[in-house]
Amino acid sequence: MQNDPESPLTEKRQITTGPIVGSFKTYLEGGNRADLRVPCREIPPVSPNGGGESVLVYDTSGPYSDPDVAIDVRRGLAGLRSPWIDERGDTERYPGRAYRPEDDGYMKAGAREIPQRPAEPRRARSGRNVSQMHYARQGIVTPEMEYIAIRENLTRETARRTLNDRAPDDERDRRLAGNGLGAQIPAVITPEFVRDEVARGRAIIPANINHPESEPMIIGRNFRVKINANLGNSAVTSSIEEEVEKMVWAIRWGADNIMDLSTGKDIHTTREWILRNSPVPVGTVPIYQALEKVDGRPEGLTWEVYRDTLIEQAEQGVDYFTIHAGVLLRYVPMTAKRMTGIVSRGGSIMAKWCLTHHRESFLYTHFEEICEIMKAYDVSFSLGDGLRPGSIADANDEAQFAELETLGELTQIAWKHDVQTMIEGPGHVPMHLIRENMTKQLEVCGEAPFYTLGPLTTDIAPGYDHITSAIGAAMIGWFGTAMLCYVTPKEHLGLPDRDDVKEGVIAYKIAAHAADLAKGHPAARRRDDALSQARFEFRWEDQFNLALDPETARSYHDATLPQEGAKVAHFCSMCGPKFCSMEITQQVRDYAASQGLGVEEAVDSGLRDKAEEFAAVGGELYVAAGD
Amino acid sequence: MQNDPESPLTEKRQITTGPIVGSFKTYLEGGNRADLRVPCREIPPVSPNGGGESVLVYDTSGPYSDPDVAIDVRRGLAGLRSPWIDERGDTERYPGRAYRPEDDGYMKAGAREIPQRPAEPRRARSGRNVSQMHYARQGIVTPEMEYIAIRENLTRETARRTLNDRAPDDERDRRLAGNGLGAQIPAVITPEFVRDEVARGRAIIPANINHPESEPMIIGRNFRVKINANLGNSAVTSSIEEEVEKMVWAIRWGADNIMDLSTGKDIHTTREWILRNSPVPVGTVPIYQALEKVDGRPEGLTWEVYRDTLIEQAEQGVDYFTIHAGVLLRYVPMTAKRMTGIVSRGGSIMAKWCLTHHRESFLYTHFEEICEIMKAYDVSFSLGDGLRPGSIADANDEAQFAELETLGELTQIAWKHDVQTMIEGPGHVPMHLIRENMTKQLEVCGEAPFYTLGPLTTDIAPGYDHITSAIGAAMIGWFGTAMLCYVTPKEHLGLPDRDDVKEGVIAYKIAAHAADLAKGHPAARRRDDALSQARFEFRWEDQFNLALDPETARSYHDATLPQEGAKVAHFCSMCGPKFCSMEITQQVRDYAASQGLGVEEAVDSGLRDKAEEFAAVGGELYVAAGD
Repeated sequence: MQNDPESPLTEKRQITTGPIVGSFKTYLEGGNRADLRVPCREIPPVSPNGGGESVLVYDTSGPYSDPDVAIDVRRGLAGLRSPWIDERGDTERYPGRAYRPEDDGYMKAGAREIPQRPAEPRRARSGRNVSQMHYARQGIVTPEMEYIAIRENLTRETARRTLNDRAPDDERDRRLAGNGLGAQIPAVITPEFVRDEVARGRAIIPANINHPESEPMIIGRNFRVKINANLGNSAVTSSIEEEVEKMVWAIRWGADNIMDLSTGKDIHTTREWILRNSPVPVGTVPIYQALEKVDGRPEGLTWEVYRDTLIEQAEQGVDYFTIHAGVLLRYVPMTAKRMTGIVSRGGSIMAKWCLTHHRESFLYTHFEEICEIMKAYDVSFSLGDGLRPGSIADANDEAQFAELETLGELTQIAWKHDVQTMIEGPGHVPMHLIRENMTKQLEVCGEAPFYTLGPLTTDIAPGYDHITSAIGAAMIGWFGTAMLCYVTPKEHLGLPDRDDVKEGVIAYKIAAHAADLAKGHPAARRRDDALSQARFEFRWEDQFNLALDPETARSYHDATLPQEGAKVAHFCSMCGPKFCSMEITQQVRDYAASQGLGVEEAVDSGLRDKAEEFAAVGGELYVAAGD
Repeated sequence: MQNDPESPLTEKRQITTGPIVGSFKTYLEGGNRADLRVPCREIPPVSPNGGGESVLVYDTSGPYSDPDVAIDVRRGLAGLRSPWIDERGDTERYPGRAYRPEDDGYMKAGAREIPQRPAEPRRARSGRNVSQMHYARQGIVTPEMEYIAIRENLTRETARRTLNDRAPDDERDRRLAGNGLGAQIPAVITPEFVRDEVARGRAIIPANINHPESEPMIIGRNFRVKINANLGNSAVTSSIEEEVEKMVWAIRWGADNIMDLSTGKDIHTTREWILRNSPVPVGTVPIYQALEKVDGRPEGLTWEVYRDTLIEQAEQGVDYFTIHAGVLLRYVPMTAKRMTGIVSRGGSIMAKWCLTHHRESFLYTHFEEICEIMKAYDVSFSLGDGLRPGSIADANDEAQFAELETLGELTQIAWKHDVQTMIEGPGHVPMHLIRENMTKQLEVCGEAPFYTLGPLTTDIAPGYDHITSAIGAAMIGWFGTAMLCYVTPKEHLGLPDRDDVKEGVIAYKIAAHAADLAKGHPAARRRDDALSQARFEFRWEDQFNLALDPETARSYHDATLPQEGAKVAHFCSMCGPKFCSMEITQQVRDYAASQGLGVEEAVDSGLRDKAEEFAAVGGELYVAAGD
C-alpha cells in the first residue's frame, strides 16, 4: 500500500510498498543454480488502443514492491545470500565486538528501539579472504556473479528486435550504436565476464558477508551506470519506519546503492535498522562515527578508535567504506590558495588531524591493516576524494590531482590484498574539464570504478543543483564513470526531504540512462523506443507507465486534459484536437503501406501518382475532439 | 510590486514588477552616443559579515524591474530604438495592411480589448534594405551594435581581477580558460566586432523596425549563449495583463527571447499586446496563423494567404519568423520509416501540403519573395527544422540531415539578400550524436547561428524533460549553439503554467551558463567565483542573492534553519554547528597567513614547526551554535 507521496520525510509514516503504478514485480531465473531469482519490473502494455509489448526494466526496489512479500521492519529482510555464503565454507560466526554506549553517542536510554542482532556476525576464517575479487581471481564464479549476469542482461538478448512493425533497421542500429570511449560492453553479459571484470578490478560487487539481505549488483564501466543516494538522519527521530522509509523511497525510484551519512546520536542503531531492511548495498563514511566517539574533536582521533569503528560497521554489514586515505599532510597546504579550500567533511577532518599532529594520516599509514579488515568481511573501498573541488575555480587543480594519484597507489595496495576498490570523484567541474578528470582517473587508478558526485557544471544555481550536476553526471557517466552519486535540490542549502530525494534520484536516473545510451549499452534504447512508440501511437497510459516517474507524467497530462477520454484521444494538449503532427505522420505512413509502397520506392517514384490518390481518398485528417 | 509567485498563469493577475530580490536595476552608458543606456542588474554584497563586492549580471527583464518606470500595458513600452530607426532615414510610414476579422480567427466581437495601433507601421523605402546585416556589410556600426557591445561586456573588463584576496592566479586562469571548440570569443567585445560577426552571418540581431521597444541583443556563437522561452495561449483568455504577464515572468527569470506560439482565436490581438510590451525580441511561426485563416486545413494553404500573414506580422513587429522551408517533397517519404515520423507542427503541415498537392513547398519556391519581405522590415529567418527527430531512434537520420543541407542552401540565398538568418535544430539526440549534429550544422550552414530545442538526451522521462534536455542543451551550447530553446517539465504532456515556465527558464539559464564557462567566456566565471566565495565565507544572503533564483535558494535554506541567526552563522545544516569543513579550511588558511607563510614555503618546509605552533595556539575550531 502506498502512502501519500506528498508528505515530507519528517512525518511519521509507514513503509511504501506495492509495485509502481502500471508495472508488476517479476523474477528471472537461470544460471546454474535453482535458487537464483533475479527481480525485475515488467511494464505491460495496457492501452485500450492496443499495440505495444511488455518491457522489462532493471529493478532496485527490493521486496517492498512485491505484494507477495510480507514486510516487517523489526524482522528485516530475508538473507538471500546466506546459503551462498555458508556453502563457501570460508567464514565463521563469532561473538563480535560488544555494543558500547558511545556507538550511539551515549544516546539517552529508551530514546530508541534497539534492534536485536539476529545472529552473531560472520567473518573470514583465519587466513581466508572472502572478497568477491579474491574468488574472481581464483577463477571462481560465485552465485553473486551469476545473479548479476542475469540482472544486467534482463531483456538484452531480445533488445535488438525492432519494436517498430518494420524489419530490423541496420542503419538505425549503426547510428545508435553509441561511442563507448574505451568501454568494452559485450552484447550479452556472461557470468564469466562478470568474474573477469571483478578479477581485474574494473568492477566491484559490494557484498559484505554480514549483509546477506542485499541483492547482488555490480559497479563498473562495462555495466549499466549506477546511482547512489545519500541519506542520513540529523537528529534523533522517533520511529524505525521513518528511518527505513527514507531508504525504501530512494530505492523505489531507482537508487542502486545508498549511503548512510548519519551523524550525531543513535547512528549505530539507525544503521542497523537500515542494513537489516536494505536490499541494496549500503555505504558509510566511518570517520563520521569515529569523530562522534571522540566528542567531535578531529585531533582526538586515533587509529584505535577508527579501527574499532571499522570493525563495528563491518560486523553490522556495511558494504563499502568511504576512506579519505589520500589526504596526505603534504597536500593540505595546496588547498590554502583555493577558492573554497577543503569542502569534504572527511577531508577536512583528516587535514585538521594531520596539521595538528604534524603526522601523516593514520588512514594512509595503516592502510594495509585496513585492507586486512576489508577482506575479512568483503567490505569494498570507496577511496574518498577529500580534496575534491568545491567550486568551479578549484576544479582539476593541483590538490585534487595529487590526491587522485595517491588514490591510484592505494588502489594497487588494495588489489594486492584482493580488496574491491572504487574511487570517489568530484564535485564542481566545468564541462570542458570533465573529460580530463575522467581520463586522469582511468590512467592513475588502473580503471578501478569511478564514483562521482555530479559533477556540478556551474556554481550559480543553488536550489537547482540536481540539474547543474545532472549535466556533469550524464557526461562523466558517458566518459566512463561507473556510479553517480546523486545531488538533490537542497544541496548547499539544507537537508533533503522526501520530495527532494525523489527529485534527486529521478535526475540521476536520467543522467545514468543518457550515459548508457551514449555508450551504446545494448539494452538501454529499448525503453526509449517503447516509450516513443507509445507516444507516437497515442497510447497515453503506456507512455506514462514507461516513464521514470509515471505518477508525475500522468498528473501533468491530467492538469491540462483531465478527462478519461483524453487518454485514448489521438491528440494532446500541445496542438489540440484539430491538428496533430504525429497523427498526420501516421496517416502518411498508413497511406504508403496501403499502396504496398516501400519507402525507397516512394522516394524514387517521386510520389506523384500517390499524392493524387491521396488527395482523392481524401481521408479526413482531423480527429473530432473526444469530449 | 511583486505578486505571489505561486499562482498559476491561468489566474488573473497583475504584472510582476520591481527588481529581483537582492539586486537593483542599473544602466551602463558608453559608446559614441549619449542615448545608449544599457540595462543590467547589480547584486551588491549585503551580508552583515562584510566582504564581497558588487556583481553586474546581464539583465533581460526590461523596464519591469526598474521601479522608476511606470508600467501601463495599454500604452506599451517606450520605443527606445525609434530615434535610431528614424535617423537612418531609409524607412517610411504607410497605412499598412488593414485588420481583418480572420486575423483573430473571427473572434467574437467584444471578446477582447483590441489594442490601438500607436502609429502606422514602418517599412523600408523602395529599394532599401533595413536589415542589420545589410548595414553591417556596408561597414556601418549601428546604435544597436554599440548597445550590444556594452551589454555583452558588462563587467568583462574587470572580470580577470581575482575575487579572492590573493594575487591573480595565472594557473587558475589557464585551467579555466575553457575550450571554445572553434569559437573565437575576444577578451572584450567591440562594436566593430559585433558588426563583423553580423556581416559574416555568424550572429544576428533580431530587430524588426516595427518593434522599436526591444532592447538590442545578439545571437551568435561568439557571444553569451542565449535562451528562448516559448509561450502561447491555447484558448481565449480574459485579460491583457495575463497575456503580458506570461512574457514578463519569462524574461524576469532570464529568457533572452520569447516566441508567441499562440493558436486558435485572437492570435493577432494577443501578439499585438505582447509586442507592444516586450523588451525582448519576439518570434513566431507564421504558418500557425495562416492555417487558422484557412480553417485549419493544411491543404487549403496558399502562398497568397501565407504572404499576407508574413506582412501582417512584420507590420506588427515580429522579430523573427520560423519558416519550415526545408521540408521538401522528396524528403517526406524519408520520414515514413522513422519511429516517430514528423513531430514538428510546421513540418507536418508542410508535409501534408506537399503530399496533397504533389508540389514543392511554396515556402521553398517563394523563398526569394520571402527574403524581400524580411529585408523590408528586418525580420530575421529562423529556418525551421520541420524534420527534427522526435525520439532518440530518429536522431541524426537521413531526413534530418537532408533538411539541414537544404537549410544551408537557403541560408546562402538569404545572405545574398542580406537577410539575417539562424537555423533551428533538434529535438531528441543521444549524447554521443550531439557533436556530430553541431559539426554538420556549422559546415553546411556556414556558421549561421544554431538555435536548438534541447536536445533531449533520452525519451524516458516525461515530466522531467527540462532536465533530459538541459543536459543536451548545455553540451550543444558548449559545442557552438548560439541560442537554446527551453523545454518545460510539461513537455509532451500539457501546457506549461507559471511554475513550469520558471523551471524551464532556470534550467536553461543553467545550461547556457555552463556552456559559457566551458567555452571560456571571459566574464562567465565571475558570478560563479562571487557565489562560491560568498559560500566559503558564510555570507548566506550574498549566496542567495547571487543565485539564479534567490527566492528558491533562500526558502530551501530556511526550510531547515529558519532562524535569522542562521544566516550569519559560520555553519549550515549539512554538517551542523559542531563541525564545518569550510570553517576548518578558513582557519588553516588564516593560520598560514598569520605566520607570513606563503603556500609554496609551507609545502617546502614540511610544515613541522608550524603544525606545532598551530597545536600550541590551539584556537578553538568549533563555533558555538548561534541559536
